[in-house]
Amino acid sequence: MKILLIGASGTIGKAVTQKLSLEHSIISANYSDGDVQVDLGNVESIKAMFAHVGSVDAIISTAGLANFGPLSDMTDADYELALQNKLMGQVNLVRLGKEVINQGGSITLTSGILSREPMPGSSVISMANGALESYVKAAALELDSLRLNVVAPIFVKETMAMMGMPTDSGLSAADTASAYVAAITGDMHGQTLDAPDYI
Amino acid sequence: MKILLIGASGTIGKAVTQKLSLEHSIISANYSDGDVQVDLGNVESIKAMFAHVGSVDAIISTAGLANFGPLSDMTDADYELALQNKLMGQVNLVRLGKEVINQGGSITLTSGILSREPMPGSSVISMANGALESYVKAAALELDSLRLNVVAPIFVKETMAMMGMPTDSGLSAADTASAYVAAITGDMHGQTLDAPDYI
Repeated sequence: MKILLIGASGTIGKAVTQKLSLEHSIISANYSDGDVQVDLGNVESIKAMFAHVGSVDAIISTAGLANFGPLSDMTDADYELALQNKLMGQVNLVRLGKEVINQGGSITLTSGILSREPMPGSSVISMANGALESYVKAAALELDSLRLNVVAPIFVKETMAMMGMPTDSGLSAADTASAYVAAITGDMHGQTLDAPDYI
Repeated sequence: MKILLIGASGTIGKAVTQKLSLEHSIISANYSDGDVQVDLGNVESIKAMFAHVGSVDAIISTAGLANFGPLSDMTDADYELALQNKLMGQVNLVRLGKEVINQGGSITLTSGILSREPMPGSSVISMANGALESYVKAAALELDSLRLNVVAPIFVKETMAMMGMPTDSGLSAADTASAYVAAITGDMHGQTLDAPDYI
């Protein structure tokens, strides 16, 4: 398969690349490097990426920006970043990507468990993740020639270690990547894939 | 209780007013009439409403605009309306309203069952509803002096009749209103109240 991976340079993106590049051709897309550059918060940039890449068999996004922080500290800009980048950036991958996906292909986005298991500080991220999961479930009802799913990771051990947190409750990037492999090789459609279920 | 009801002139808003005005003082807020006018899509308008109304014991929103239609027909403007009005309008009622709510008060928003039970045409509405439900669950973790919940109505019989649809699968506005009464008089916090559960 020819797979476009947006967010390929991230912790999860690298692990997804490692798992998929054995059998598939990966086109890496990142903000500032990779085979193609893309600003997920800018719809024109997404259009330019698809124009450059052409048709693909799968689109995976492990990208999307949203800030974590106390509810009372969240500014208009924090809400806008989550909505324009993590949410609409990925929604626009669906809206524009469905036109370039080969018949029977798939689009796989990334939300996160904080949609359904929030924690103090996650309000804005939870909001974006909840929006993505409901959108995917709804939009899939109108997408017949491709499959659309969203992976909900839990905290990634490598990220937790980098932040000086204990990593017991996390999942390794490699194990998280297994959910993306399942999404592109399976037959699910309109589903939220909780990453720990696909180890 | 002194209750600020945003969307008081709507089908659900009228039914909520009818149930609550027997025992409580309702301040009605609508786009173009009522005790105070507010444009939910404009944060300055929401600020002006709260400045005008002062402290209250409860805020209820039965308002919020988002368009229904085929996935492929949804424009950037449709997404923006849902995000700026139905979603951020109600999120801003929380962000600004928590400053004017009396101790022990409550804020109750409105999402809809389409977040979890979508139908063809509901992608943008489902997205906004899912965002609201996850946001409420998360934000409630950081709100100690007030309760925050969201009511998820199903289709309202009166609206279905107006649209020439069979009404068997709907819930009357009066029965839907019971969920809002439960939200302001109960002790739930951070919950999505499915309207049919509160008849």
